[in-house]
Amino acid sequence: MDYKTLQGADALRAAFRRHASGISVITGSDQGQPFGFTASSATSLGSNPPLISLNIAQGSSSYPLMTTGRLLGLHVLGSENLPLAQQMAGAKEDRFKSAYQAGPEDVPVFEQASAVLLVRIRSVIDVEKNAVVICDVESGFELNEQSPITYFQRGYHSIGDRLADNF
Amino acid sequence: MDYKTLQGADALRAAFRRHASGISVITGSDQGQPFGFTASSATSLGSNPPLISLNIAQGSSSYPLMTTGRLLGLHVLGSENLPLAQQMAGAKEDRFKSAYQAGPEDVPVFEQASAVLLVRIRSVIDVEKNAVVICDVESGFELNEQSPITYFQRGYHSIGDRLADNF
Repeated sequence: MDYKTLQGADALRAAFRRHASGISVITGSDQGQPFGFTASSATSLGSNPPLISLNIAQGSSSYPLMTTGRLLGLHVLGSENLPLAQQMAGAKEDRFKSAYQAGPEDVPVFEQASAVLLVRIRSVIDVEKNAVVICDVESGFELNEQSPITYFQRGYHSIGDRLADNF
Repeated sequence: MDYKTLQGADALRAAFRRHASGISVITGSDQGQPFGFTASSATSLGSNPPLISLNIAQGSSSYPLMTTGRLLGLHVLGSENLPLAQQMAGAKEDRFKSAYQAGPEDVPVFEQASAVLLVRIRSVIDVEKNAVVICDVESGFELNEQSPITYFQRGYHSIGDRLADNF
């Protein structure tokens, strides 16, 4: 191979700029105050029992609230949810300025999302300056069905053509 | 909310059908034999130091090879790589029937991918019947630049319009 070799963080950034990530919004409630953030790392961790994982930086304002036993809302976002994705990735004081419903245990639910899962934190695995959060899936709702939204090359994108079925 | 409530695994499947996942191919070499699989869970776990995580079922034929210290190739796939994605998700004996290069430590490298990272397994965290694999990013190559490929609603999709910049 005579391709240019990149090292460490430069290699990681170059590769993941070309990788499409699904977008979700994580929410919770702490002593009556809503908190949450936009995530690009939420993924399934098996269905029997149903589990999800997501990654968070320890520097995030939500990291101290990732405590075992806490209920979270995991919103799958669609192409109509760009404003929500941007709002929940923006300034902390503006994240809940749009309407939401109070779900079980006061978890904020944004009904404009494509779907929401209620997940309970099972464990938080610290790795360097980040953490992997493992959650049990308790229940969920299908909400406003729409095509997904995805993130790559530092931007949000809609989905294009279906290329093939199945995995 | 008067949406239909789904429980457990049904909720997980319903939500993640609507979630766009990026697609990658993981490869390695064990005693001279290539192994690998298509994954939809590879994601960044911070850049300082550069880390990635991916999820694997313990029933996967590659799970016993997820050992600490082993070097893996993480290929980011693009819209031209549908055949590679399908091949590496298909029958084990057919996964290396198309041409590849032997990279460092004999890691198979598919040069038609969008980018490849060479990552070394730091830890494997078993969770029920699955595992989270944490890897250090050592180096990487930008290969055949192309639009990403994504997976949702049980099918592969290309990327559509750019909706907005930044995160």
